Amino acid sequence: MKVVSTIAEARAARAALGPLGLVPTMGYLHAGHLSLVAQAKAGGGAVAATIFVNPTQFGPTEDLSRYPRDLERDLRLLEAAGVDLVFTPTPEVMYPQGFDARIEVGAITEKLEGAIRPGHFAGVCTVVAKLFNILQPQRAYFGQKDAQQCAVIRRMVADLDVPVEIKIGETVREADGLALSSRNVYLSPDQRAAAPALYQALLAARGAYDDGERRAQALRDAAKAKLSGAVIDYVSVADRVTLDELELVTDGALVSLAVRFGATRLIDNLILT
Amino acid sequence: MKVVSTIAEARAARAALGPLGLVPTMGYLHAGHLSLVAQAKAGGGAVAATIFVNPTQFGPTEDLSRYPRDLERDLRLLEAAGVDLVFTPTPEVMYPQGFDARIEVGAITEKLEGAIRPGHFAGVCTVVAKLFNILQPQRAYFGQKDAQQCAVIRRMVADLDVPVEIKIGETVREADGLALSSRNVYLSPDQRAAAPALYQALLAARGAYDDGERRAQALRDAAKAKLSGAVIDYVSVADRVTLDELELVTDGALVSLAVRFGATRLIDNLILT
Repeated sequence: MKVVSTIAEARAARAALGPLGLVPTMGYLHAGHLSLVAQAKAGGGAVAATIFVNPTQFGPTEDLSRYPRDLERDLRLLEAAGVDLVFTPTPEVMYPQGFDARIEVGAITEKLEGAIRPGHFAGVCTVVAKLFNILQPQRAYFGQKDAQQCAVIRRMVADLDVPVEIKIGETVREADGLALSSRNVYLSPDQRAAAPALYQALLAARGAYDDGERRAQALRDAAKAKLSGAVIDYVSVADRVTLDELELVTDGALVSLAVRFGATRLIDNLILT
Repeated sequence: MKVVSTIAEARAARAALGPLGLVPTMGYLHAGHLSLVAQAKAGGGAVAATIFVNPTQFGPTEDLSRYPRDLERDLRLLEAAGVDLVFTPTPEVMYPQGFDARIEVGAITEKLEGAIRPGHFAGVCTVVAKLFNILQPQRAYFGQKDAQQCAVIRRMVADLDVPVEIKIGETVREADGLALSSRNVYLSPDQRAAAPALYQALLAARGAYDDGERRAQALRDAAKAKLSGAVIDYVSVADRVTLDELELVTDGALVSLAVRFGATRLIDNLILT
């Protein structure tokens, strides 16, 4: 496994590989990331991963400085998973003096996470476009756990005709239903014990839907009932492509939610079909 | 020469070519465009051109609807010049329902043309990125006549790590010095007779510079003296990379100007080294 940290090295190492699947990450890897690597391996060809805690997708009051990192462990996990190339740039490599570009993907980035984290998705789109341009993968893998990120990246790839196929990997969960996230490490024991409520809330919405409920507000209310006492940022029942909030679910929906436990925000989602 | 108008056709036709030089145009071709094609041919490999009057780089009060077009003549000229592939999409192909992406390149786009044409360079950057993603050229050719556009595209390519080498072709001029532009066709005989003043103004600035003048304002004044009676949008002496206005010219400069003749804006520039 080759590990490089400059753009020139990354381009040279990539040129030595054939068709490539890319797994972009912010590191501190868990089984969710590794399931994306496994999916990329199964897709055939070579596999690259990136580890980059991208400062431009963090707001000024967010957790950039304390975001968990463990590069040595990450590299061991990626090597064991059969990754061919890892690109671990510094912020200075990605954003040198004079850097001034930004990719905006409009309305879809202004809802849900985007409403609470202004500028977040411009940061995501810009860094993903840069990583795609540097490594020129044929396929790239993202986790459904970040549902809006998946929708935004699909929008960017479609709108800018980016020649990369976007593949989405299913959310990986703990036994009690908590979606894996690098940020789960922030949770206190009490918060950790309460955190499965997110998945319970999603299951409640799905249960009501499976029982025939099609009014989006009733589905939101079913989810919220499982979150009593929690600080809710949003509970959304939205169109899967545009992320517009629905009144009636007639053609599937994305049920997504964000909840705060102290300073830690957790998000999760389920798709209704 | 293959002529295609859908993205799928363009990708398929491009895949049949090897290393590629791209000349993006808005059509109504003149000797300036053809000099870029010749430069691309000389660069080796195949050559593609695009003809697309990009609506998103025109402001609401600009000349989109009357921008001159002559596709048949353009195709004859490109075929005679040895172009391999021409992509002529419609606005609906480039901007389908739901399109919502935009590439912004910050401060450099807010000066000069950008100050007078808000949104212009976001339109340029976005369409150029799309064309690059569709046709995946190794090299792309732009005319120095649009000096700020060249600087903005260089910024975008650097900042987003776009794997395309940007080549700039020298401005081609009429015998009296008027820079070739598809918009020259708008000029009345009187306006056409007056239009060489732009180049005379640039030469006056260069003359002063060659005589040892280094104060930028004195260079601007030397240019403006040749434009008396004209409606000047700007006369600029700026850093060649950042386009920041200079006080003293210590390391070369871009001298650029924009002048209105009735409803027609003309721009031109020279580099001081």
